[in-house]
Amino acid sequence: MRGTVLHAPGDVRVEDLEVPRIQAPTDAVVRLSAACVCGSDLWPYRGIEKLDGPRPMGHEYVGVVEEVGRDVATVRPGQFVVGSFFASDNTCEICRTGYQSSCVHREGVGGAQAQFMRVPLADGTLVATPEQPPDDLIPSLLAASDVLGTGWFAAVAAQAGPGKTVAVVGDGAVGLLGVLAARQLGAERIIAMSRHESRQKLALDFGATDIVTERGDEGVERIKELTGGLGAHSVLEAVGTQESMMQAIKSTRPGGHVGYVGVTHDVQLPGLDLFFSHVHLHGGPAPVRQYLPELIDLIWQRQIDPGKVFDLRLPLDEAPEAYRAMDERRAVKVLLQP
Amino acid sequence: MRGTVLHAPGDVRVEDLEVPRIQAPTDAVVRLSAACVCGSDLWPYRGIEKLDGPRPMGHEYVGVVEEVGRDVATVRPGQFVVGSFFASDNTCEICRTGYQSSCVHREGVGGAQAQFMRVPLADGTLVATPEQPPDDLIPSLLAASDVLGTGWFAAVAAQAGPGKTVAVVGDGAVGLLGVLAARQLGAERIIAMSRHESRQKLALDFGATDIVTERGDEGVERIKELTGGLGAHSVLEAVGTQESMMQAIKSTRPGGHVGYVGVTHDVQLPGLDLFFSHVHLHGGPAPVRQYLPELIDLIWQRQIDPGKVFDLRLPLDEAPEAYRAMDERRAVKVLLQP
Repeated sequence: MRGTVLHAPGDVRVEDLEVPRIQAPTDAVVRLSAACVCGSDLWPYRGIEKLDGPRPMGHEYVGVVEEVGRDVATVRPGQFVVGSFFASDNTCEICRTGYQSSCVHREGVGGAQAQFMRVPLADGTLVATPEQPPDDLIPSLLAASDVLGTGWFAAVAAQAGPGKTVAVVGDGAVGLLGVLAARQLGAERIIAMSRHESRQKLALDFGATDIVTERGDEGVERIKELTGGLGAHSVLEAVGTQESMMQAIKSTRPGGHVGYVGVTHDVQLPGLDLFFSHVHLHGGPAPVRQYLPELIDLIWQRQIDPGKVFDLRLPLDEAPEAYRAMDERRAVKVLLQP
Repeated sequence: MRGTVLHAPGDVRVEDLEVPRIQAPTDAVVRLSAACVCGSDLWPYRGIEKLDGPRPMGHEYVGVVEEVGRDVATVRPGQFVVGSFFASDNTCEICRTGYQSSCVHREGVGGAQAQFMRVPLADGTLVATPEQPPDDLIPSLLAASDVLGTGWFAAVAAQAGPGKTVAVVGDGAVGLLGVLAARQLGAERIIAMSRHESRQKLALDFGATDIVTERGDEGVERIKELTGGLGAHSVLEAVGTQESMMQAIKSTRPGGHVGYVGVTHDVQLPGLDLFFSHVHLHGGPAPVRQYLPELIDLIWQRQIDPGKVFDLRLPLDEAPEAYRAMDERRAVKVLLQP
């Protein structure tokens, strides 16, 4: 089969690989219907995250179950499934509180930018759609697998909801879908922070009510001006840098909530600033599995259209161009067709 | 009048000072019935926090209202009052959400280790007791002014409650009263982290069910052993160092809550550790004013006895010895009698 492998920073290749097989009785093998490149894939691509040898890439996936191990009970071959980027048993005490991405048996999932992939702990990780989806829903279902689920978690962690003013730091796919999530959760006002016209437009499509183009301390000042000097009730952070984290914390009013989901790189939060900010801080790897049934349902009912974040589609063999387009911010998110 | 002034690290003196007077129409002047030394007073005393000239010390106070400004409506001369260490209007949008210590008009309060003090924004800061308290309740009412209110906030921020296993990092007065708060809030199991026998005893008195003597990573391991490998649901942090913050974060299970109230000193939280810890982090300067009515009532009904944290009483003029006793950890908390 064809699959994408990162060999070194900037060196991503589509190669002939072995088709993955069932290894544990709880595994499933999925024939991928669509794959994509994640913002977090850019960290090793850019050389900011260390690479220990060639890495099969991709952790967002939808497709048709090809084969299951003998202990798999809830999904069967032929079903269309959506999965999450950490495999989870969905039964442990941590999973039962909704933190499947910290499942005591969690396993990373990889190699989804390919024709087939192996998914561990299939029962606790995969969710089947009611039936085979029409083609036009596939991008949205793929978005649910990571970027939508992650934006949703950011909005939940930031307690976006009725009566709240929400600010979103980051205009990548996760930030934009954080806007969509905040809207779905009933937020009154949603301020998207973006200086890119196409992304601003998508934010407005997804429900943003205001756009702030300033960043850093100027961005913080602008948010305060828009909120009676107090800051937003809820701030979503979807970047993961020192600047974006501090921008999020400082944009939040005392007693407000920051939901952060950008995988942090070289971030050190100064204790005293955090102490006097009086914010609630919550985030981490999104427990996408928790939200999948609800998100699949919203997509199936066509109440949300998160697939709009895919503004470029390429055949799988053009994965290197997909990485370049996202690295250069020519594309918000690229869908790969295996 | 006599009052305590810190001139330089280690150099605290009781001196003759001017009796404070009403400066703004919203002020009150209070004749202090008791005062005390706070763990946070030790930071400048130890030279860890910078001192810009001589500083009148003390921010925990109970006493009888001597005089009020013309705009003060809710307290009157002769009433016994308890106050909080930040003056607040208790009417702004931030106060109304329960974050009085971040009131948009907040003012620091100081000079409480004295015979009299001026309290700004008296209506929003002071709470009168139902009548003059019997002498034996005064230590507990004084504790409500800061250490109890702060331990309470830590327990609320950590979402201590029924069914929860709570761990408390820090065995100073705030940590010990965090144990009391967790018990009052209905926590099932309360693990106090302390290696000092007298403080362990007090923790058990206040409702701790387990004692852990290990610190740092060993302490974390011990908490995990006691919680099925997962960590506590709720962890109270009442120290404010890098080690104590990381001990608190690492002792908390994914999805759990850290309530931190130790004023942080030279703390830098590593973003990636925080990200993958999956904890909720909330804290800062305790909004004691929010809890005062409830805490005064619990004390008045003799349902709690937080005054037990005072294990040494000295006349005000012996304030230097009070600082030494706390600095050397010979006393948990010293009550000063003006």
